[in-house]
Amino acid sequence: MNIETYIAEKKVFIEDWLGLHVPSEDLSPSSLYRAMRYSLLAKSKRIRPILALAVTESLGGNIERVLPFACGLELIHTYSLVHDDLPAMDNDDVRRGQPSNHKVFGEAMAILAGDALLTHAFFLMISPQIVSDLSPELVLRIIHEISKAAGTQGMISGQVMDMECEGQTISLSRLETMHSCKTGAMILAAIRVGGLVAGVSTEQMENLGLYGRHIGLAFQIIDDVLDIEGQPELLGKTIGKDRTAQKATFPLLLGVEESKKLAHQHYVQGIQALEGFGERVEILRDLAKFIIFRKF
Amino acid sequence: MNIETYIAEKKVFIEDWLGLHVPSEDLSPSSLYRAMRYSLLAKSKRIRPILALAVTESLGGNIERVLPFACGLELIHTYSLVHDDLPAMDNDDVRRGQPSNHKVFGEAMAILAGDALLTHAFFLMISPQIVSDLSPELVLRIIHEISKAAGTQGMISGQVMDMECEGQTISLSRLETMHSCKTGAMILAAIRVGGLVAGVSTEQMENLGLYGRHIGLAFQIIDDVLDIEGQPELLGKTIGKDRTAQKATFPLLLGVEESKKLAHQHYVQGIQALEGFGERVEILRDLAKFIIFRKF
Repeated sequence: MNIETYIAEKKVFIEDWLGLHVPSEDLSPSSLYRAMRYSLLAKSKRIRPILALAVTESLGGNIERVLPFACGLELIHTYSLVHDDLPAMDNDDVRRGQPSNHKVFGEAMAILAGDALLTHAFFLMISPQIVSDLSPELVLRIIHEISKAAGTQGMISGQVMDMECEGQTISLSRLETMHSCKTGAMILAAIRVGGLVAGVSTEQMENLGLYGRHIGLAFQIIDDVLDIEGQPELLGKTIGKDRTAQKATFPLLLGVEESKKLAHQHYVQGIQALEGFGERVEILRDLAKFIIFRKF
Repeated sequence: MNIETYIAEKKVFIEDWLGLHVPSEDLSPSSLYRAMRYSLLAKSKRIRPILALAVTESLGGNIERVLPFACGLELIHTYSLVHDDLPAMDNDDVRRGQPSNHKVFGEAMAILAGDALLTHAFFLMISPQIVSDLSPELVLRIIHEISKAAGTQGMISGQVMDMECEGQTISLSRLETMHSCKTGAMILAAIRVGGLVAGVSTEQMENLGLYGRHIGLAFQIIDDVLDIEGQPELLGKTIGKDRTAQKATFPLLLGVEESKKLAHQHYVQGIQALEGFGERVEILRDLAKFIIFRKF
């Protein structure tokens, strides 16, 4: 199966689950559910949940079992986009190919919808009827991993660093730390959670972690590059925002070509980390390639 | 022990734990931790965590075991205040006796600090080293309860109703539904979590639930009354905001005196629900009385 088909199939699987597990707009308060579903079900790469599913599946685990956590990660990622787009934050008018949440529902509702997406992620991941096939110990371990990646030691701390580095020249190592937190932590969590559900060994988890860290960085470097030379209609968001906001980015520090080289290095290192797994993780290699060569 | 001493003692216990479990400002990103601690450790009634501790303790449970969840509820409550005070929401300048979070740290940081308080609550409540004395099944059940109360079936849905009812005349039953969600759900969760840790029977849990629902409503009715006739220096927040914002409140619908009577009725019904527990839950009766007769 080629990677586009694989991604397309998994997206349907993920989006069906998301659509079923966030209350419908027919229920009350419908305005909240409408705002949540608007951003959650918009066109998206679904890279985090797909990675989680791909790791579990390629290592012989049951993808039905990892699905609630894969989707939990997507709910959390979506809340972070909704809040990040707010006027007080990055003030973005377009996201996922449509007007951003607050442009449609207003700022107050966008704040609440973001809060609700985050809270609902935990609610779903911990619901007895949803995760009954896994041992409670494993459920706790997985959610702990996700809450860490989403929180003050992960994504939020990356957001704060990002904000504080605006207009500053920072070192490559600080930029890597920032990106490892901002985007990397949730991508790494997706991969580790996939491994936990597949029941991998400690050594395998270390290698998956290496793969995750490298492709997480590659993903964000390419994100920075696409903000310069990407096509808005493919990306589904405004480009050139990083420069306007004086964000600290890889292209700003290294130039576009050097940034691409660095992303490629991380890609290669990510692939190397998979060596011990053999043929069965071919899909993880393909996903890494997709991340590095993507246009959106 | 009188109720003031009891509350004061429990507050120290709770605030010590909170102070230890939210990273110090010496760590990075210090600006985030400063903003989180600023709102979390400000002067507060701590009514939710105290109720959880009081239920567990009076029913023979171990309060050390309920403490992480009691404090998780306080973290979640605090995030809701930080977001609620934002200019796009209620636009409040004063909270917990000090300038509100966004007045000190800016809107972007207040949004992130709120997000971080919410995420950190789940991170702590699920941390193996923190909740190791309880069975994983019980930890899952408790966090499920809390995530439900904080989410689209609880607090956030109450916030949305509150926002949508501004300027409207609504029925008493709709107002009660709104308040049951907005404040009631988290108060009820505190009480139920206390019962879960104490290992109460199904029948006892039902009675605790009744107690919780009635004092949750009494709490919010008195909150509405205090917004009219309270003293700002005692309350630690601006008064008269409900009227300015044309909020749907009990005093608006019933008048101040009728509202007080209704709160008293809920108080009496709450006390009645405790009948089967006998003398040992005297502290829960005292806390109900404190809620109804409080000046802040």
